Amino acid sequence: MTRQGLLLVLSGPSGVGKGTVKSAMVKQKIFSFEYSVSMTTRKPRPGEVDGKDYYFVSEDRFQEAIANNELLEYNSYVGNHYGTPLAPVKQMLKEGKDVLLEIDVNGARQVRKLMPDGVFIFLTPPDLHELKHRIVTRGTDSDQVIAMRMKQARKEILMMQDYDYAVVNDTIANAVDHIKSIVEAEHVRVPRVIDDYRNMVEED
Amino acid sequence: MTRQGLLLVLSGPSGVGKGTVKSAMVKQKIFSFEYSVSMTTRKPRPGEVDGKDYYFVSEDRFQEAIANNELLEYNSYVGNHYGTPLAPVKQMLKEGKDVLLEIDVNGARQVRKLMPDGVFIFLTPPDLHELKHRIVTRGTDSDQVIAMRMKQARKEILMMQDYDYAVVNDTIANAVDHIKSIVEAEHVRVPRVIDDYRNMVEED
Repeated sequence: MTRQGLLLVLSGPSGVGKGTVKSAMVKQKIFSFEYSVSMTTRKPRPGEVDGKDYYFVSEDRFQEAIANNELLEYNSYVGNHYGTPLAPVKQMLKEGKDVLLEIDVNGARQVRKLMPDGVFIFLTPPDLHELKHRIVTRGTDSDQVIAMRMKQARKEILMMQDYDYAVVNDTIANAVDHIKSIVEAEHVRVPRVIDDYRNMVEED
Repeated sequence: MTRQGLLLVLSGPSGVGKGTVKSAMVKQKIFSFEYSVSMTTRKPRPGEVDGKDYYFVSEDRFQEAIANNELLEYNSYVGNHYGTPLAPVKQMLKEGKDVLLEIDVNGARQVRKLMPDGVFIFLTPPDLHELKHRIVTRGTDSDQVIAMRMKQARKEILMMQDYDYAVVNDTIANAVDHIKSIVEAEHVRVPRVIDDYRNMVEED
């Protein structure tokens, strides 16, 4: 029996830098994640390869995939649909491979329902930490800007509730370090490893 | 409002090297833990200072401490009692300080009941990992030795169930590294930090 892989979901409010953090994780090669290929109704751009960059499908095929529960999560963005096929993710996890999904908060909510054992990381903007300070000192921001940011911050904190970890994206290096610790810690969580141990002392 | 400190409980079967790992953690100074001073009925050894190494108390005082629920956990060892006073631990956590307790499995069970939010690490002997291999290859160990070790291993795995993390003590450096990752990860767990975030956007 192989130990089940870890599903890591990296998410957060738009503009927080999820994609940049993911790229840094891929570049640093400190992780051994598998990446799932998304399905999309968007037309391929020059150089993009079907099955590698995306699975490029028709609107009908995408709707069929939704109807057949083939997608772990899906979303629309400027008129195109994007989704994560469920079967390859399940297969990789079963083979003991860790899978990283970098998706928006709506996608993360869908994944949590289907795969509650995943590890959900919420990337937070650094200004959430500085907000209080800025309000107290009243710097260059107008009252209106601060009020808007406060409203947004409250929304972000509501989203955070459904996650396991909140990592501040103050610098990419710090965020990646924290994610590394989280992955290492999750790899030795008792519910994930105890079957391995049991297997060692099984009478067979 | 200060963020509550982290209570880290380092435990495991006797002989696994809990004390050595704790000493390495203290020496490396990568952690900023507070250490609680235990209460004991053992007589002070030359050089030991009351209130620093231990609180040296009489049998009556120890029994009174138990009766008054003053102890977070207690145990007996070769005729002497040892216990962890609860009040200083609670005070340190309230002040936002992380507290490390290195205790045996009975003690850890008692702490879990009183402080379920603690982080419980079970240190496992490396031979638990090698056991299956040794059984398959039949090295120098006699059948009897292997059978005894298997029985012990099953007991250890039963203990492990109540812990959050299982860390193999194959080398002290590896064990300390894993504990470091666990502490870093636990520091950004959403249930521990969300009140801080809420506090930032509170209207006051």
